[in-house]
Amino acid sequence: MSQLYEQLQVHLDKAYAYRTALVLMSWDNSTLAPKKALVNTSKAVAILSGERYKALINNEVKELLEALSREEEQAKLTPYEKAIVKNVKKNFEDLELIPPHEYQEYQLLLAKSKAAWEYAKTHNDYAHFAPVLKEIIAYTKKFASYKQKAGQKLYDVQLNDFAEGFTTDILDGFFGKLREELVPLVQQIREKKGFISRDCLHKYYDIETQKKMARFVSEYVGFDLDRGVIGESMHPFTTNLHNNDVRLTSFYRENGLEYALFCVIHETGHALYEQDIDDAITLTPIGGGAGMSMHESQSRLYENNFGRSKAFWKNLYPKIQEFFPEQLGDVTLEEFYRAINYSEPGLIRTAADELTYPFHIMIRYEIEKMIFENDVDVMELPKIWNQKYEEYLGILPPTDAEGILQDMHWSGGMLGYFPSYALGSAIAAQLYHHMNKEMPLEDFLEEGNLKPIQEYLKENIHRFGESKNTQELLMETTGEGFNPEYYVDYLANKYSALYELN
Amino acid sequence: MSQLYEQLQVHLDKAYAYRTALVLMSWDNSTLAPKKALVNTSKAVAILSGERYKALINNEVKELLEALSREEEQAKLTPYEKAIVKNVKKNFEDLELIPPHEYQEYQLLLAKSKAAWEYAKTHNDYAHFAPVLKEIIAYTKKFASYKQKAGQKLYDVQLNDFAEGFTTDILDGFFGKLREELVPLVQQIREKKGFISRDCLHKYYDIETQKKMARFVSEYVGFDLDRGVIGESMHPFTTNLHNNDVRLTSFYRENGLEYALFCVIHETGHALYEQDIDDAITLTPIGGGAGMSMHESQSRLYENNFGRSKAFWKNLYPKIQEFFPEQLGDVTLEEFYRAINYSEPGLIRTAADELTYPFHIMIRYEIEKMIFENDVDVMELPKIWNQKYEEYLGILPPTDAEGILQDMHWSGGMLGYFPSYALGSAIAAQLYHHMNKEMPLEDFLEEGNLKPIQEYLKENIHRFGESKNTQELLMETTGEGFNPEYYVDYLANKYSALYELN
Repeated sequence: MSQLYEQLQVHLDKAYAYRTALVLMSWDNSTLAPKKALVNTSKAVAILSGERYKALINNEVKELLEALSREEEQAKLTPYEKAIVKNVKKNFEDLELIPPHEYQEYQLLLAKSKAAWEYAKTHNDYAHFAPVLKEIIAYTKKFASYKQKAGQKLYDVQLNDFAEGFTTDILDGFFGKLREELVPLVQQIREKKGFISRDCLHKYYDIETQKKMARFVSEYVGFDLDRGVIGESMHPFTTNLHNNDVRLTSFYRENGLEYALFCVIHETGHALYEQDIDDAITLTPIGGGAGMSMHESQSRLYENNFGRSKAFWKNLYPKIQEFFPEQLGDVTLEEFYRAINYSEPGLIRTAADELTYPFHIMIRYEIEKMIFENDVDVMELPKIWNQKYEEYLGILPPTDAEGILQDMHWSGGMLGYFPSYALGSAIAAQLYHHMNKEMPLEDFLEEGNLKPIQEYLKENIHRFGESKNTQELLMETTGEGFNPEYYVDYLANKYSALYELN
Repeated sequence: MSQLYEQLQVHLDKAYAYRTALVLMSWDNSTLAPKKALVNTSKAVAILSGERYKALINNEVKELLEALSREEEQAKLTPYEKAIVKNVKKNFEDLELIPPHEYQEYQLLLAKSKAAWEYAKTHNDYAHFAPVLKEIIAYTKKFASYKQKAGQKLYDVQLNDFAEGFTTDILDGFFGKLREELVPLVQQIREKKGFISRDCLHKYYDIETQKKMARFVSEYVGFDLDRGVIGESMHPFTTNLHNNDVRLTSFYRENGLEYALFCVIHETGHALYEQDIDDAITLTPIGGGAGMSMHESQSRLYENNFGRSKAFWKNLYPKIQEFFPEQLGDVTLEEFYRAINYSEPGLIRTAADELTYPFHIMIRYEIEKMIFENDVDVMELPKIWNQKYEEYLGILPPTDAEGILQDMHWSGGMLGYFPSYALGSAIAAQLYHHMNKEMPLEDFLEEGNLKPIQEYLKENIHRFGESKNTQELLMETTGEGFNPEYYVDYLANKYSALYELN
């Protein structure tokens, strides 16, 4: 046992305590807090965020990290401890590169940017948001430049924050393949409009019953409600205080069953990841998932590869019919399966179907790449956005509110985040392909026996938390690094069959 | 503006931030957190509690408080600032009197005592709890002795923590009067058993409808749901992050309408107090109520003096009938009024009616007084408890679980707390008597016009928070100090009329 590590532990524990409080306050703000509470409560949040920052960014920790990085001290550490030291050290070094006054200014900018974006979206007034976005872009690029290594592309620095080991080279290849092989498929499906109907999902579905159904489905998929909570919020999300307190939210629409249904399966995918993190690291800085793309792969795996397969519904669909006998009693499994896989290009990313979804991401990726590679005029971005929507999806956004203003990510400084969503889908397909060889996956799904599936994911991916990165986990689990071919093949096969093409 | 006070403000803000986080974590633990979350989450709670303690108990704060207490600095302070300095200084001095290792040991004892009490209550095994209680008593008496002034009774020191300015002299007079004038009344009512029926409240009442009713009643009484939340928990309580985020809980029983109904009116009484605290002090150490007894007076005023009066229900009862037409459609206002004022001595404090309630407190008061004045053998306490129940209420507890183990207070070290409950009722009666002279109180209640009532309480009591104590507020509002006569008269008149005695 390393004495130095024990000293570090005190600081880690403090950081964990602040994180726990802040996560709970954020959850509460999104789900329960009264609407006039925010102003006062945010004062507490600001102070605790400052304390959280100081808990790990101080001279004592700096010296401990340096000492713990020496070979003779490393020899005393467990693999988890090594990963924790590496993780905290990297964050420390990244932050040290940024002059404190710039960091402060940037935090102040972020504190007001969300309101500017919300106003702009509500009033369809991009010009109101543009100057704030311009500043955010300037800071983000400057901060990335501090971390940039010789010969490294600036956007690659930024991407690495969200998906360690992924670069524009990899993503250009990935999106190039998608564009080449799937744009024609999207076009063919557009031409068969009406071939699949989802009317059965758009009847009146009582919200209270949907909530009971959501709870049932989440538990069916594997969510442990003794260690988790299901809430409700406008924008669904999953968060955790630790592995024994994982919280997901869903939302509900009276005239669309698929929203709550797939929202809750998606969030449960995230939630299983968090519940399966090893007890040994759940209270530490590596107690989350291995980056955004791996996290998203788990939600997409459950939502799409499992959740939109026919096998998955064989056992579960009759139970959904019991929740809604009037609406679904006469709808066959085959009709339901086709309805939940209806595909049509739309304007809104979060409402996109499985096939057209990655093109929403591709558009954002191409724009972010332009932003990082060139001096783009922010006032030009809506035009570029709209052109790309027309080119790839054949639809022109009638307003910026339904166009470039639809997502909050950029207002929160999260440039470089979007690609993780598409990478997640591709990683899900790669895992799905591999798991099909490793186990009787379809049989398990048909029988509603989801435990061995989760066990496999826990054993190979979940339990490690952030102690391994996405590429390492993929290599160790599937025997190869990231490979987008499985994803393209999966989509092409699935949708050709559904729409009876070729 | 005092520069020194500005320096203190930084520490006050930190303390506020920790308090806010801890209040939210506690609320969440009682209402929502998954059952297996506690072990991990309490590690964060322990760390944040330690930080909260350190935020105000440190040398920098000590020096600032001393400097700010000097006359020339006091002259620069606003009345609120003076009250805050006084409050923080008093807490500091009280804590300084306790040797740190004893404080630590006591905190550890409290951390395990609740579980010991729960076990003892569940298994009706007082002997399991007795040694823990013995230790708690020893620490409490020792800590009180550190604060004891020459000639001051030890129990008075302890009482002062919960009801500043109240002593055993005052309480002996108060309870003596109650015993003398109301024990015979309780006896007379026992003899008229069956004279009032509450069967109409004990039909089947659907819980979901009760929840809607509780929300309606709470808003009717004055709770502002834009600045508050209604939750559910086994033991109802009210808490607040600040005046714009006040949270109360209720509980529900299918076969008893009065539980949720009066629980929610009671807690709303507490909640109005918190929502009415002045914006200028809500984020400070004096942002709570003026002690437990004044807080309880507000909940009792609404629950009993208003909530169990006929005037209150004239306008509201028809609305309750609309929630439960089958159960209450045929029940007249008069029948309902009598049912909600049914009186019968029982074993359990929290289930007691308005008339017999103070005797539950008197018993606890007498026992606590013995504990502080003599060396009582903790193993003798159940016998003493039972004798007193037989003497004052005419019923012998068949088990300790329904006797001395029923309340959690002593397991949390809260000796000296109970009297506040009875004082609260007496203060409520004193305020009620006075308000009747100041405004057309009965008319307001009959019309459902509760706003001027709340405004009066806000103006005279609520807004001051802890900047004035209970005796000061009573004197300034009613023109006299605490006077229990109004309470005794109120109960005697009300119950004599209800049971048609004399």
